[in-house]
Amino acid sequence: MSGWLRVIGLGPGSAEWLTPEASALLHEATDIVGYMPYVESVPATVTAKRHASGNGVELERAREALKMAAGGSRVAVVSGGDAGIFGMAAAVFEAMENGDGAWRDLDVAVVPGMTALLAAAARVGAPLGHDFCVMSLSDYLKPWPVIEKRLQAASVGDFVLALYNPASKTRREQLTAALDCLRKHRGPETIAIAAKSIGRAEEQMMVTTLAALNPEDVNMRTLLIIGSSCTRRIRRPGKPPFVYTPRFYEEMP
Amino acid sequence: MSGWLRVIGLGPGSAEWLTPEASALLHEATDIVGYMPYVESVPATVTAKRHASGNGVELERAREALKMAAGGSRVAVVSGGDAGIFGMAAAVFEAMENGDGAWRDLDVAVVPGMTALLAAAARVGAPLGHDFCVMSLSDYLKPWPVIEKRLQAASVGDFVLALYNPASKTRREQLTAALDCLRKHRGPETIAIAAKSIGRAEEQMMVTTLAALNPEDVNMRTLLIIGSSCTRRIRRPGKPPFVYTPRFYEEMP
Repeated sequence: MSGWLRVIGLGPGSAEWLTPEASALLHEATDIVGYMPYVESVPATVTAKRHASGNGVELERAREALKMAAGGSRVAVVSGGDAGIFGMAAAVFEAMENGDGAWRDLDVAVVPGMTALLAAAARVGAPLGHDFCVMSLSDYLKPWPVIEKRLQAASVGDFVLALYNPASKTRREQLTAALDCLRKHRGPETIAIAAKSIGRAEEQMMVTTLAALNPEDVNMRTLLIIGSSCTRRIRRPGKPPFVYTPRFYEEMP
Repeated sequence: MSGWLRVIGLGPGSAEWLTPEASALLHEATDIVGYMPYVESVPATVTAKRHASGNGVELERAREALKMAAGGSRVAVVSGGDAGIFGMAAAVFEAMENGDGAWRDLDVAVVPGMTALLAAAARVGAPLGHDFCVMSLSDYLKPWPVIEKRLQAASVGDFVLALYNPASKTRREQLTAALDCLRKHRGPETIAIAAKSIGRAEEQMMVTTLAALNPEDVNMRTLLIIGSSCTRRIRRPGKPPFVYTPRFYEEMP
């Protein structure tokens, strides 16, 4: 039996961020498994059989993939960005821990990908130049009080804060509540970045302030970055500003 | 004048993590600027002139690179991992903000790279499967009380915690103090991961507990990941364990 399973991060949309390691493994796989838009974004030169499924079935998908690998297939489970950051990797290990004991013996590994956070940060400069927190705002899998406690902790620590899944079409009130919470702790002029569809043709970057950030401008393809008290904007004539968080915590030298 | 400056993340050592975008730009550059080990790790096929400098001269290096771009050179400033995460990107913007006003008009951009954190996490499973914080333990550029406040905040929020620059040959007491602080907030069985020289021939991964983690095993090439209360270990017969943080915050379903 020579099956394997690789959980592969495809990066945020653009082929220029797909790593050579991920690309090589996609071409060795017999089967590609994942959420439909990600399976469709696997390069056309990959000839493996594609198994696309819908949203919200991560655990079933993970079990199916483990079964296929146990049966001898070379299975690439794909996620956008990095599979370990709010992607399929945790679901695969959850399925492994609670499933067939033989699955622990399989040749399973995670292949890192460019997460949207790094790509979005690079587009505006270096907002993550100092300590930062990364959170998902979705309360689908964790209770809201945990999210609120973490938003407060990140504020008390004066971390730069990156928010994945800030809102969807139907899930809107979490973002409003999160912004209310952050506005209690950080000044109105705190820099806020809304990065939409990074790496895709429809990519949009918005640099604004915590006070001016409009939840209407945020959708499920948006990543939000809220600056710390130190995050700065460099204005440029006729060009979008750069944003960076200095390496120094106190006044600039 | 057709000069440009790109701040490029090379990834953590291995060529299989260098993105196609970064690779293409390195081949277009006329000059490669950076800390010596990173300049040396640029692929040999790159024919640009190499300008290597020592540690601790980030700002001078950034100014020099901006001057070269202003003079018409195509300058690649290189960092290991991602240049925006404790790398050269913030130094370049600091130099730009405080330097020659004309530098703001230059064609400058950041090119994201695979940061060591994602690569290290992938090696052991999916420890970042839920909300997490990223900090540098170096007090070279920020006062220790800020670091301590952030360690406490990350603990209160029950974030997974990733620590860059946990120690160097001479800087040892910060790590001991940080572990003392974390041990006050998290149980002795909390999972701790020490990832050393990720992506290099001498790579070493250690999965242990917060109680058992020995500062002697940590050097300047180590990235530490301390689990949250939910981070779990999957034991495997005859193989290293997998570590993951479940997507669910409460009990597994």
